[in-house]
Amino acid sequence: MSPAVAGRQLEILADQVWMKMVEKKFVVTPWEVSGVVDYERLIREFGTQPISGGLAKRLESSLDDAAYLVRREIFFSHRDLNLVLDDYEKGKGFFLYTGRGPSGPMHIGHILSFYFTKWLQDKFQTRVYIQITDDEKFLEEKRGLSYEDTQKWAEENILEIAAVGFEPDKTFILQDTEFVGHAYPLILKIARRVNYSTAKSVFGFTGETNIGFSFYPAVQILPSLFEKKRCLIPSAIDQDPYWRIQRDIAESLGYHKAAAIHSKFMPPLTGMQDKMSSSKPETAIYLNDDDKTVRNKIYRHAFSGGQSSIEEHRKLGGNPDVDVPFQWLYMFFEPDDKRIEEIRAEYRSGQMLTGQMKDILVEKVTGFLREHRERREKARTQVHLYKKDGALAREMWKHDFSKS
Amino acid sequence: MSPAVAGRQLEILADQVWMKMVEKKFVVTPWEVSGVVDYERLIREFGTQPISGGLAKRLESSLDDAAYLVRREIFFSHRDLNLVLDDYEKGKGFFLYTGRGPSGPMHIGHILSFYFTKWLQDKFQTRVYIQITDDEKFLEEKRGLSYEDTQKWAEENILEIAAVGFEPDKTFILQDTEFVGHAYPLILKIARRVNYSTAKSVFGFTGETNIGFSFYPAVQILPSLFEKKRCLIPSAIDQDPYWRIQRDIAESLGYHKAAAIHSKFMPPLTGMQDKMSSSKPETAIYLNDDDKTVRNKIYRHAFSGGQSSIEEHRKLGGNPDVDVPFQWLYMFFEPDDKRIEEIRAEYRSGQMLTGQMKDILVEKVTGFLREHRERREKARTQVHLYKKDGALAREMWKHDFSKS
Repeated sequence: MSPAVAGRQLEILADQVWMKMVEKKFVVTPWEVSGVVDYERLIREFGTQPISGGLAKRLESSLDDAAYLVRREIFFSHRDLNLVLDDYEKGKGFFLYTGRGPSGPMHIGHILSFYFTKWLQDKFQTRVYIQITDDEKFLEEKRGLSYEDTQKWAEENILEIAAVGFEPDKTFILQDTEFVGHAYPLILKIARRVNYSTAKSVFGFTGETNIGFSFYPAVQILPSLFEKKRCLIPSAIDQDPYWRIQRDIAESLGYHKAAAIHSKFMPPLTGMQDKMSSSKPETAIYLNDDDKTVRNKIYRHAFSGGQSSIEEHRKLGGNPDVDVPFQWLYMFFEPDDKRIEEIRAEYRSGQMLTGQMKDILVEKVTGFLREHRERREKARTQVHLYKKDGALAREMWKHDFSKS
Repeated sequence: MSPAVAGRQLEILADQVWMKMVEKKFVVTPWEVSGVVDYERLIREFGTQPISGGLAKRLESSLDDAAYLVRREIFFSHRDLNLVLDDYEKGKGFFLYTGRGPSGPMHIGHILSFYFTKWLQDKFQTRVYIQITDDEKFLEEKRGLSYEDTQKWAEENILEIAAVGFEPDKTFILQDTEFVGHAYPLILKIARRVNYSTAKSVFGFTGETNIGFSFYPAVQILPSLFEKKRCLIPSAIDQDPYWRIQRDIAESLGYHKAAAIHSKFMPPLTGMQDKMSSSKPETAIYLNDDDKTVRNKIYRHAFSGGQSSIEEHRKLGGNPDVDVPFQWLYMFFEPDDKRIEEIRAEYRSGQMLTGQMKDILVEKVTGFLREHRERREKARTQVHLYKKDGALAREMWKHDFSKS
């Protein structure tokens, strides 16, 4: 299939996906998630694969402690994950790539994917590339961020990411405004292969979109071509459109199609639709929220699946499927399968009250954040290793991209 | 006028210009010049001003030796040139910006504008920024240049430009693939202000245009914002669309609208339409053509305004208006007004034969190229000053563009 034909098919596919999402009244794009997301439908419409059966077992057995995230289908969808595991088993190896758009403070939902990536790094002993897309966030006009804003958030967010504890000699944090120049030759090669119609269809650009933003996909595709090995991208599924384009052009440039492992969105505190938003503090718990703030947010804003009175609750029981505290425990904070099923059963039966459910979550979240903050303080002296002085960072800054 | 309204007006204007050029059967865009160019019409349709009257006198009196290029209307059109001269006289100063797309060997037509720019630098003691747009030439797919090709041509072209003899401490040659990263913050600020509809209308982009090429105008606008002084851009008029966009956004970013001084195209050897083309060797004389090649090209390919036999020519006379050797002498190689009018008269009367006209041009061109080549050899050791080590180059590489 010629690139032109593939490009056209991709356009048509993208238009169809877009229309169907609009019909369904939920929207998932790299810049917007709204409505109640139907994940099975996303898999069909994005054309990804569910993580199930033998593949799920294979991944679980590799992940040990983090296996619950696969077992519970928090990471639920993929592209070419089987090929990644094949390459690993054959000794070819693979590399990981993830990123962060520094548009504000990071919340619990943002950091989950980084912890998962670190677990993958530990288990598979891979290199990790983390892209800080400060250019994207500046170009995304509706955010109204000044250039200085994006630089400030980039610095703060990088510290949060460093706190996760990636291996300093195997991890490279590239901040676009610093690194794009060095890698510009390869970015140009990517950009030359992506025409405007394709980008427009995949991302929904309009005439009002600025020319920087319509160029930006080439920058986000860049790290997926940092090595000739297969690249696995752990991220929430909203970033998938970039990898569709990447997969359309990577082989013609002499690289592998990107593989992906997609997570669901942690629901906002306020209920099971949309996603946590940095601009709506009541929907999210930020990584720098202190214990008191965490307690207040959970007690005041967390949407409960409980009944309107204790008597009713004891009689009818709660609904864990819409109870955000339960969902947060299930999605991340309670790895013990036996314990989470006890909580679910006790809540459903009415034995556990809403307040008790919230107490459990408050304890888990404050404990997690205390540890994260301690790691963050220690990480201040590590940032330079990820960005410049670690073994991988030094290699990347020396790499000649004109030969890529 | 809000940026949105201005942008929309610019779109409408650009569409109108485009349509009228198509009707007239000549096309002038940054990537194509074809047909017989009607320069008066270009002035009207591009919305520039003719250089005439008091302004022409004012410029001529400043230029001394190069004044003939204004007097003969080779530089014939401008934007805000009067404001530039005002700023100069008030002691505010201005700066010069020009450039070269390294897509192949440079010919006589390319270098003319650089010599003119050097004369401006000498007379006005200004800084000069010269952009080498190797990214543009790589992104312009129809050229089919590999990345390595653009790098090779960039290196060779820079040497030709260095031969012109710009002041090393006041001249900065920026090669995009090397410098874009350093200036990326300011490029992002430009890109955020240019929407796709505007760029599409001004440049005639289509859905097939790659996303790199539609972003590139932000890169070409960059050097016009290197200083808070007024920027004067000497170039052939085909580059004008970039400055239309620049003028639409510069003030909102805290800079001056770019001023421009536009030259006509030196006609190709083969006749008075289209322009010299690097891909058609018979149309152009390259800067590295040796004396014999120059002679052969002029004698064999130069379109003559003479008659078909010597007898006819003696009787009817030649037509200097379509005689390319005469036009080249007029446009660049014979600065002496008295001498050029003698040549014109003798040719028109039939006293001067086509062969004699060609002899004069051959002597001028080979002499010019011999001197240029000598300067080029000496310039080999100077290139590093223009790109990195001269006073201005060092300043630009230290400049913090995140504060621009």
